[in-house]
Amino acid sequence: MLRVEHIGIAVKSMAESQQLFETLLGAPCYKHEIVESEKVTTAFFQKGETKIELLESSDPEGVIAKFIEKKGEGLHHIAFEVEDIRAEMERLKSQGFKLLMEEPKRGADDKLICFVHPKSAGGVLLELCQTIKQ
Amino acid sequence: MLRVEHIGIAVKSMAESQQLFETLLGAPCYKHEIVESEKVTTAFFQKGETKIELLESSDPEGVIAKFIEKKGEGLHHIAFEVEDIRAEMERLKSQGFKLLMEEPKRGADDKLICFVHPKSAGGVLLELCQTIKQ
Repeated sequence: MLRVEHIGIAVKSMAESQQLFETLLGAPCYKHEIVESEKVTTAFFQKGETKIELLESSDPEGVIAKFIEKKGEGLHHIAFEVEDIRAEMERLKSQGFKLLMEEPKRGADDKLICFVHPKSAGGVLLELCQTIKQ
Repeated sequence: MLRVEHIGIAVKSMAESQQLFETLLGAPCYKHEIVESEKVTTAFFQKGETKIELLESSDPEGVIAKFIEKKGEGLHHIAFEVEDIRAEMERLKSQGFKLLMEEPKRGADDKLICFVHPKSAGGVLLELCQTIKQ
């Protein structure tokens, strides 16, 4: 794992939270993206080499809606950039970590992603992400 | 706010979690520090420009013990490096954010720190930190 690529934050209302985080971080949202497969709308902010990614559920049954129902708004996951996501998935599996998917899938921001189960990672929902080369 | 200085993770057992995160992150813990004022023992890992800070309570009544009791182990706070913590505290107060302290205090890793109340920051416990010049 190379660096913290982004930090995901679950929000109820993108309109309200985008304004709040723009003021809080002192940085503009530079991009929105809808990720159909995850049922989320995202908004991105850049701070140093790390992005802050707000996540609003586009479906009342989506994972972000369920997370907020259970834990409230707030920190949702950390994503680490990796060079070779399949190699990193193999490494983690061989060391006993439980992955939430067998194959990497397409996430926001032109990335291949895979989540590690929080139960095997100290309660942290950890995402591996690899930038797709254009 | 300049960059994500560190991400704090609440853990029950430092001994177990340190080993887990060394394996997970593929990086050694490079420092431990006891912060008496916060009743925590910390362990640091470096990934890119960001540190991962594990936090174990040294007191059953400490804030980390109470956090784990309520929410379980996992992501606890994000800390942003700022150039001038007092100026940033003033800016945030004037924009309606609620701070958890009136004056910055001494935190781990030679920093002056101040927390922003999660209720005013989208459910995120956000720390401002400024490196103390030696």
